Amino acid sequence: LRSGFGEVVYCSGKSTEHLVKIFQSFNEKNINIMGTRASKEQYEAINALMPEAEYDEMSRIVKIMRNVPEQTGLIAVCTGGTSDIAVAEEAAQTAEFFGSRVMRVYDVGVAGIHRLLSKIEDINKANCIVAVAGMEGALPGVIAGMSHKPVIAVPTSIGYGANFNGLSSLLTMLNSCAEGIAVVNIDNGFGAGYMSTQINRLAVQ
Amino acid sequence: LRSGFGEVVYCSGKSTEHLVKIFQSFNEKNINIMGTRASKEQYEAINALMPEAEYDEMSRIVKIMRNVPEQTGLIAVCTGGTSDIAVAEEAAQTAEFFGSRVMRVYDVGVAGIHRLLSKIEDINKANCIVAVAGMEGALPGVIAGMSHKPVIAVPTSIGYGANFNGLSSLLTMLNSCAEGIAVVNIDNGFGAGYMSTQINRLAVQ
Amino acid sequence: LRSGFGEVVYCSGKSTEHLVKIFQSFNEKNINIMGTRASKEQYEAINALMPEAEYDEMSRIVKIMRNVPEQTGLIAVCTGGTSDIAVAEEAAQTAEFFGSRVMRVYDVGVAGIHRLLSKIEDINKANCIVAVAGMEGALPGVIAGMSHKPVIAVPTSIGYGANFNGLSSLLTMLNSCAEGIAVVNIDNGFGAGYMSTQINRLAVQ
Amino acid sequence: LRSGFGEVVYCSGKSTEHLVKIFQSFNEKNINIMGTRASKEQYEAINALMPEAEYDEMSRIVKIMRNVPEQTGLIAVCTGGTSDIAVAEEAAQTAEFFGSRVMRVYDVGVAGIHRLLSKIEDINKANCIVAVAGMEGALPGVIAGMSHKPVIAVPTSIGYGANFNGLSSLLTMLNSCAEGIAVVNIDNGFGAGYMSTQINRLAVQ
Amino acid sequence: LRSGFGEVVYCSGKSTEHLVKIFQSFNEKNINIMGTRASKEQYEAINALMPEAEYDEMSRIVKIMRNVPEQTGLIAVCTGGTSDIAVAEEAAQTAEFFGSRVMRVYDVGVAGIHRLLSKIEDINKANCIVAVAGMEGALPGVIAGMSHKPVIAVPTSIGYGANFNGLSSLLTMLNSCAEGIAVVNIDNGFGAGYMSTQINRLAVQ
Amino acid sequence: LRSGFGEVVYCSGKSTEHLVKIFQSFNEKNINIMGTRASKEQYEAINALMPEAEYDEMSRIVKIMRNVPEQTGLIAVCTGGTSDIAVAEEAAQTAEFFGSRVMRVYDVGVAGIHRLLSKIEDINKANCIVAVAGMEGALPGVIAGMSHKPVIAVPTSIGYGANFNGLSSLLTMLNSCAEGIAVVNIDNGFGAGYMSTQINRLAVQ
Amino acid sequence: LRSGFGEVVYCSGKSTEHLVKIFQSFNEKNINIMGTRASKEQYEAINALMPEAEYDEMSRIVKIMRNVPEQTGLIAVCTGGTSDIAVAEEAAQTAEFFGSRVMRVYDVGVAGIHRLLSKIEDINKANCIVAVAGMEGALPGVIAGMSHKPVIAVPTSIGYGANFNGLSSLLTMLNSCAEGIAVVNIDNGFGAGYMSTQINRLAVQ
Amino acid sequence: LRSGFGEVVYCSGKSTEHLVKIFQSFNEKNINIMGTRASKEQYEAINALMPEAEYDEMSRIVKIMRNVPEQTGLIAVCTGGTSDIAVAEEAAQTAEFFGSRVMRVYDVGVAGIHRLLSKIEDINKANCIVAVAGMEGALPGVIAGMSHKPVIAVPTSIGYGANFNGLSSLLTMLNSCAEGIAVVNIDNGFGAGYMSTQINRLAVQ
Ligand SMILES: Nc1ncnc2c1ncn2[C@@H]1O[C@H](COP(=O)(O)O)[C@@H](O)[C@H]1O
Ligand SMILES: Nc1ncnc2c1ncn2[C@@H]1O[C@H](COP(=O)(O)O)[C@@H](O)[C@H]1O
Ligand SMILES: Nc1ncnc2c1ncn2[C@@H]1O[C@H](COP(=O)(O)O)[C@@H](O)[C@H]1O
Ligand SMILES: Nc1ncnc2c1ncn2[C@@H]1O[C@H](COP(=O)(O)O)[C@@H](O)[C@H]1O
Ligand SMILES: [Mg+2]
Ligand SMILES: [Mg+2]
Ligand SMILES: [Mg+2]
Ligand SMILES: [Mg+2]
Ligand SMILES: [Mg+2]
Ligand SMILES: [Mg+2]
Ligand SMILES: [Mg+2]
Ligand SMILES: [Mg+2]
Repeated sequence: LRSGFGEVVYCSGKSTEHLVKIFQSFNEKNINIMGTRASKEQYEAINALMPEAEYDEMSRIVKIMRNVPEQTGLIAVCTGGTSDIAVAEEAAQTAEFFGSRVMRVYDVGVAGIHRLLSKIEDINKANCIVAVAGMEGALPGVIAGMSHKPVIAVPTSIGYGANFNGLSSLLTMLNSCAEGIAVVNIDNGFGAGYMSTQINRLAVQ
Repeated sequence: LRSGFGEVVYCSGKSTEHLVKIFQSFNEKNINIMGTRASKEQYEAINALMPEAEYDEMSRIVKIMRNVPEQTGLIAVCTGGTSDIAVAEEAAQTAEFFGSRVMRVYDVGVAGIHRLLSKIEDINKANCIVAVAGMEGALPGVIAGMSHKPVIAVPTSIGYGANFNGLSSLLTMLNSCAEGIAVVNIDNGFGAGYMSTQINRLAVQ
Repeated sequence: LRSGFGEVVYCSGKSTEHLVKIFQSFNEKNINIMGTRASKEQYEAINALMPEAEYDEMSRIVKIMRNVPEQTGLIAVCTGGTSDIAVAEEAAQTAEFFGSRVMRVYDVGVAGIHRLLSKIEDINKANCIVAVAGMEGALPGVIAGMSHKPVIAVPTSIGYGANFNGLSSLLTMLNSCAEGIAVVNIDNGFGAGYMSTQINRLAVQ
Repeated sequence: LRSGFGEVVYCSGKSTEHLVKIFQSFNEKNINIMGTRASKEQYEAINALMPEAEYDEMSRIVKIMRNVPEQTGLIAVCTGGTSDIAVAEEAAQTAEFFGSRVMRVYDVGVAGIHRLLSKIEDINKANCIVAVAGMEGALPGVIAGMSHKPVIAVPTSIGYGANFNGLSSLLTMLNSCAEGIAVVNIDNGFGAGYMSTQINRLAVQ
Repeated sequence: LRSGFGEVVYCSGKSTEHLVKIFQSFNEKNINIMGTRASKEQYEAINALMPEAEYDEMSRIVKIMRNVPEQTGLIAVCTGGTSDIAVAEEAAQTAEFFGSRVMRVYDVGVAGIHRLLSKIEDINKANCIVAVAGMEGALPGVIAGMSHKPVIAVPTSIGYGANFNGLSSLLTMLNSCAEGIAVVNIDNGFGAGYMSTQINRLAVQ
Repeated sequence: LRSGFGEVVYCSGKSTEHLVKIFQSFNEKNINIMGTRASKEQYEAINALMPEAEYDEMSRIVKIMRNVPEQTGLIAVCTGGTSDIAVAEEAAQTAEFFGSRVMRVYDVGVAGIHRLLSKIEDINKANCIVAVAGMEGALPGVIAGMSHKPVIAVPTSIGYGANFNGLSSLLTMLNSCAEGIAVVNIDNGFGAGYMSTQINRLAVQ
Repeated sequence: LRSGFGEVVYCSGKSTEHLVKIFQSFNEKNINIMGTRASKEQYEAINALMPEAEYDEMSRIVKIMRNVPEQTGLIAVCTGGTSDIAVAEEAAQTAEFFGSRVMRVYDVGVAGIHRLLSKIEDINKANCIVAVAGMEGALPGVIAGMSHKPVIAVPTSIGYGANFNGLSSLLTMLNSCAEGIAVVNIDNGFGAGYMSTQINRLAVQ
Repeated sequence: LRSGFGEVVYCSGKSTEHLVKIFQSFNEKNINIMGTRASKEQYEAINALMPEAEYDEMSRIVKIMRNVPEQTGLIAVCTGGTSDIAVAEEAAQTAEFFGSRVMRVYDVGVAGIHRLLSKIEDINKANCIVAVAGMEGALPGVIAGMSHKPVIAVPTSIGYGANFNGLSSLLTMLNSCAEGIAVVNIDNGFGAGYMSTQINRLAVQ
C-alpha cells in the first residue's frame, strides 16, 4: 500500500535526537514523510535541520511532502464533537497522505441528531466512513445504521468520570447492534486512516 | 408515595416459604401487592394459597390487585430491542401499580433511527421518559437529545462479549452528552418505574 | 427548556482562542452565558474582552448575566463533605441559571448522621433533591430512604485508594436499595442541575 | 485463641470423602467441630456416620458440639437486609463457637435509617460490632459514625447489575469516611466472627 | 447490501414461540433466511413447521435457502485454533449468505508460525481477511503485518484464567501495531462476515 | 474515643486558607490538633500564624501538641519495606495522638522471612498489630498466621505495573487465609491507627 | 523438547468425537499420549476404544503410556492448600511425562509458615520450583525469598469474593518483591510443568 | 546467586539522601553496586561523592563496578520495538552484572515477522530467552513457538488507549498458547534479568 507514498513515523516516546535521525535518513531518499503524535519540540528540532517540514498543531502531524499524491475515491471522516477533531485529522491526513480523497463532516454527534440526518446523504457517497467519537461514543453505530458502507469506528479519550479515558466509547462501539462496523484503538486516527485507505483503494481499482 | 397503593416485594433470593409468608401477611391487610423478580415456582407457591395472584412471565411480576388505581399523567417507556421488553415491563407495571398512565414504545433502537424519529412527537407528550436499552445502550442519550422531558435511562444485561453483562450499556448512558438524563442500575426496571412515577406525580399535582 | 435562559458552554478541553470566539458570538446576542469547567486562564481571556464576565473559583463557572431569571419552585442541593461543594455548586448554579430556586445543605455526610437528620424536614420541602458525595458515596441513598421526592445522585471523584477516582461512589449510588434515586456521571454537577430543573419545572407549572 | 474451643473446617471445594475423614479424625479427639460452607450433601454424609452432627441451612454450618463454651463479653452482629442473614449467621455462630456472647440486630439497612437509630444504643453496648451488608453496602460506615466501638465490615454478594457480586459493597466499606472500621472479604462471615472474638477477648480479659 | 439476499435473525434470547413466528413471516415471503446463535431446540421447533430449514451445529446457524446466491470476489477466513472454528463459520457463512466467495484457512495460530507462513500467499489473494483467534489473540496482527489487505479481527471467548472470556484477545487485537486491522466484538462472527462482505463488494463492483 | 485527645484534620484537598482557619479555631480552644496528608506549603501557612506547629515530612503530619497524652497498652506497627514507612508513620502517630503506646517494626517483608521470624515474639506482645505493605502485600497475612492478636492490614500504593496503585496489595490482604485480619483502604494509615487504638483501649480498660 | 516423549492434547472444549479421533491417530503411532483438562465423559469415550487409557480424577489427565520415560534431575512442586493439588498434579504429571523427577510438597501455605520452613531445605535441592497457590497467592514469593532456584508461580482459581477467580493470586505473584520468580496463567499447571522441565533439562545436561 | 557479584538497589521512591547513604555503605565494602530505576538527579548526587559511578540514561541504571565479572553461558534479550529497549537493557545489564553473557536482538516485533525469522537461529543458541514487548505484546509467544528454550516474557507499559499501561501486553503473554513461557511484572526488566541468570547458571554448571 505504502509504495510510492512515503514513510510514516510514530513520534511519541522517541527521543528528539533519535527522531531527527530517522527523518534525516528518509529525507535523503527524497520521499514524503509523515510523523504522527509529534510534540511541538520534536517538530522544531526537525524543522531546524529540514526547513521544509510543516506542523499541524491540531493533529500533531509533522510532514515533509516532496510531491502531493493525486487523491482518488472518497472517504468520509465524521466526528461527534469538536474535541474529537484532533483524532479525526490524524485519520483524514493519513488517508490523504496515502492518496485518498477525504470529506470532513465534523460535530454531528447524536445528542443533536438532526445535524447528522442533514449530512447522511453526502456521507453515504463515500466508499468508507471513519466515525470518531468520545463521551458515550454512539455516533459510529448510528451512522452504520443509516449506511451500507463499511464504518471504521474510532473511540477518543475525550470525556471524564465513568468514561475511563475512552473505555466507555470503545465498549459502545464494540457492542453496536448496527451492521457494518469495526473498531480501532482509542485515539488511533492513524489506524482508521490507513484501513479506510485500503478499503477505498479496493473500490477505486 | 406508596400510601394507598400497596406494597412491593423483591422476590429474588427469598426462600419460597419466607416469600409466601410475606404475601400472606400483606394479603390479610386487603391491599395491592406486587412482587418483582419472581420465579414461576415462587408464583405457583403463592397462587396455591392466594388464587387471586396473577403472574406475568415476561416481566416476572406476581401481583394481587384488590383495586386498580386510577392512572393519571403520562410516562413513556421505550426500548431499543425486543429483548429489553422484560425490563421495560418491570418499569411500566411498577409505574402503573403506583397510579401512572404508561405509553409503551418498544423496539425503536438507534441502529434504525427512523423508527424512533416517527415516534418522538408522541414520546414527548409524556411527563417523564424511561428509556431501556442493552447492547451499546445508546437509545436514552439519543432520546434525551430530542426531548425536553427528564429521561430515566435503564441499561439491560442484554448483549455478549465486551458488553460485560450490561456494563457497556451502563457506561454509555452515564457518559451521554445529551441534557436531561440520569441512570439506574442494570436491569433495574423497578427503580425507573418508581422514580418516573415520582416525577409524573409532581407534574399532575 | 433553555429558551429564554441563555446558552451553556463546556469549557474544558477547548482552546482559549476558540472559547473566546464562542463567548463573543453569544454575547453579541445579548443573552445570558454560562461556561462550566473553566480554568482561571480561560476566564481571564474572556474577561479581557468582555469585562462583565464573572468567575467563581469554587465551581469554575464563568458567567455573563444580562438578566437574572426569576427563581421558582425549589431544589435542595446537598453534599456529604466540604470537598464535594465544587461539584454541588456546578449543580446549584446551573439550576439557578435556568430559573430554579435552590436550597444548599452542605456537609451532611452519613458518617455523622445527626446533622442530616436535623435538616431532612427542610430538604423534603424541595421538589427534587440533588445529593452529591465522594468517598463511599452513601448520602444519596440515605436521603432517598427518608424522602418521597426524586433524588439525583452525583458521585464525585473525591477520595483515594480503592475509591478509583469516584468509581466507588458511583457504584454505591447505582446499587442503592432506597426508592427514588437515579445517577449521573462522576462530577457531573451540570447534568444534575439540568435534570433537577426539568423536574422542578414540571412541579411549578 | 482456638485452644480449648475445637476445630474449624472450610468445607467448600472439599470432596465428601475427604471431608468425612477430617470430621472423623477430629471427632475421635472428642472436641467441638464446626464446618463452614457445607452443602446439604456434605452434611448428610457426615451425619450418616456421626449422628450428633447438626446442620443449619441458613448459615450452611455443620457442627458437632461436645460441650457448649461459656459465652462472655458481647459482639453485635448487624445486617442491612434479610438476604444478608446467611453471612451474618456464619459470623455470629463462629463467634459463639469460640466463646463470645452475640447480639443479633438484623434488617436495619440505611434505606430506612430509623430502624437503625432505634437500635444503636443497644449496639453500642457491644465490645465489637460486625456489620454485614450487600447492595450498596453503606450500613457499616453509618454504624461506625454512631459508635466508638471497632466495626468489622462484611460485604455480601447480594445484589445485581453494577453490584458485580459484592465488589460495590466492598468498595463502599473500604472508602467509608467514618472512623473505626476495617473490612474482610466478600461473604467472609467466618473471618469477621473470628476477628471480633479476638477483640472481644481483649475486652473481657 | 441486503436487498435480494434475504433476512438475518439473531436467535439468542428469543423465546422459541417468538422465533418461530419471525421465521414463518419471512418464510411466507419466499426469501432466504439465516438465524445465528440458534440452539438445537430452536432449530427443531422451526424445522417442525418448516422442514426445509437446515442446521449447522458447529456455527449454530439455522438456514432456509430459497436460492443460493452467486458467490463473487474473495474473503479469507482464518483461525488460530480449532476451537475458534465455530465463530469463524458464523463469519464465513454470513459472508456466503450475502454472496461472497470464502476461502477457509483454519488452525494457523502463531504458536506454530510456519503453518501460517505457508498459507500467506493464498490469503493475500482475498480482498479482505477475517482473522479469528482466542487465547492470546495474536493471529490478526501477525497476518496484518504480512498483508496489504484490510483485516477484520474477531476475538473469541476461547481461553481460561487471565483470558477473562475473550477480553485478553480483544485487547491484543486493539493494540496491534500492524497496519490495516479493525476489531469487532468478542465472538461476533456475524459482524465480521457482514463487514468483510461490504468490503468485498466494493472490490468486485 | 476522641474526648480529651484533641481534633484531627484531613488536609488533602483543602485550600490553604480554609485549612488555616480550621487550625486557628481549634487552636483557640487550646487542644491538641493533628493534620494528616498535609503538604509542606500547608504546614508553612499554618506555622506562620501558629509557630508551635510541627511538621513530619515522612508521614506528612502537622501537629500542635498542647499536652502529650500518656501512652498505654501496646500496638505493633510493622512494614514490609522502607517505602511503606510513610503510611506506617501515619498509623503510628495517629495511635500515639490518641494515647496508645506504639512499637515500630519496619522493613520485615516476606521476601526475607527470617527478619520477621526474629521479631515475631516481640510483635505478639502487642494488643493489636498494624501491618503495612505494598508490592504483593503478603506481610499482614503471614503475621496473622503467626499471631493470636487482631491484625489491621494496610495496603500501600507502593509498586508498579500490575500493582495498579495498591490494588494488588489490597486484594492479597482481603484474600488472606490466615485468621484474624481485616483491611483498611489503600494508604489509610490514619484508619488503621484509629481502629488499633479502639482495640488497644478495650484491652487496657 | 518433546521428541521421544509423546504428544499432549488439551481436551477442554473439544467435542468427544473430535478428541477420540486425535487420540486414535496418535495411538496408531505407538507413542505416549497425555490429555489435560479431560472430563470423565471424554475419558470414558477414549477408554471404550483404547482400554489402555488411564484417568486421574484429581488432575483430570488421561494418559496412554507406551513406555515410562526415565526421570532425571529434580523439580519441586509445592502448594499452599489442599484445593490447589489438582493444578499441582497437572504440573507434576506434565513434568514426569517429559522425563523430569518430581518432589511433591503439598499444603505448606504461608498462613502456617512453620510447615514451609521445615521443608525448605528439601525444596532447595530441586533445580526448579513450581509453586501453586490460590486465595492470596503468597506462597511463590515467600519460597523465592528463601531459595536461589528459579520459581515458576502458578495462581489457582481457588478462593471466593475479592479473589475474582484467581485474579488476586495472579497479581500477588506478579508483584512479588522476591528475586527469581515468573508467573504462568491461572490454573495453568501444564505450562508450569513444561517450563520447569525445560529448566531441569538445562541443569541435567 | 548473588554472592561475589555485589548488591542491587531499587532507587525509585527512595529519597536522594537515603539512597546516597546506601551506596556509600556498600561502596566502603569495595563491591560492585547496581542501582535500577535511578533518576538523573539521584545519579548526580551519588556521582558527586563517588565519582566512579556511571549512569546509563536508557536503562536508568547507575553502577559502580569494582571488578567486571566473567560472562558465561548465553541469554538472548529480544524486543518488539525500539521503545522497549529501556526495559530490555535493565534485563540485559542485570544479567551481565551477575555474570551472564547476553546477546541483544532488538526491534524484531511480530508486525514484521521476517526480521524475527532471520534471527531465530541465533536466538535459539541461548540457554534462556528474555522477550520484551509493549503494545499487543505478542513477541514472547511467537518466539516460544519457535524455540525449545525457556522464555521469560516482559510486558512493557509502551502503548496507549486500550493498552492500559501494559495490561494488554501482560494478558497476551499470560494467555500465550505456546509452550515454555512465563511472565514477570510490567516493565520488570530486573526480574527477567535475574531469573534468566538463574537458568543460565543451571546450564553452565
Ligand atoms: N426489581 C427490583 N430491583 C431493585 N429493588 C427492588 C426491585 N423490586 C422491588 N425493589 C425494592 O425492594 C423493596 C422490597 O424489598 P424486600 O423488603 O427485600 O422485599 C421494595 O420496596 C423496593 O424498594
Ligand atoms: N467461611 C470461611 N471463609 C474463609 N475461611 C474460612 C471459612 N471457614 C473456615 N475458614 C478457615 O479455613 C480453615 C480451615 O481450612 P481447611 O484446613 O482447608 O479446612 C479454618 O481454620 C479457618 O481459618
Ligand atoms: N451473531 C450475531 N451477533 C450480533 N448481531 C447479530 C448476529 N446475528 C445477527 N445479528 C444482527 O441482529 C439482527 C437481527 O436482530 P433481531 O431483529 O433481534 O433478530 C441482524 O439483522 C443482524 O444485524
Ligand atoms: N527494577 C526493579 N524492579 C523490581 N525489583 C527490583 C528492581 N531493581 C531491584 N529490585 C529488587 O529490589 C531489591 C533492592 O530493594 P531495596 O532494598 O529496596 O533497595 C533488589 O535486591 C532486587 O531484589
Ligand atoms: Mg450499515
Ligand atoms: Mg433533553
Ligand atoms: Mg425515596
Ligand atoms: Mg466510630
Ligand atoms: Mg497490513
Ligand atoms: Mg492470627
Ligand atoms: Mg530467590
Ligand atoms: Mg517453546
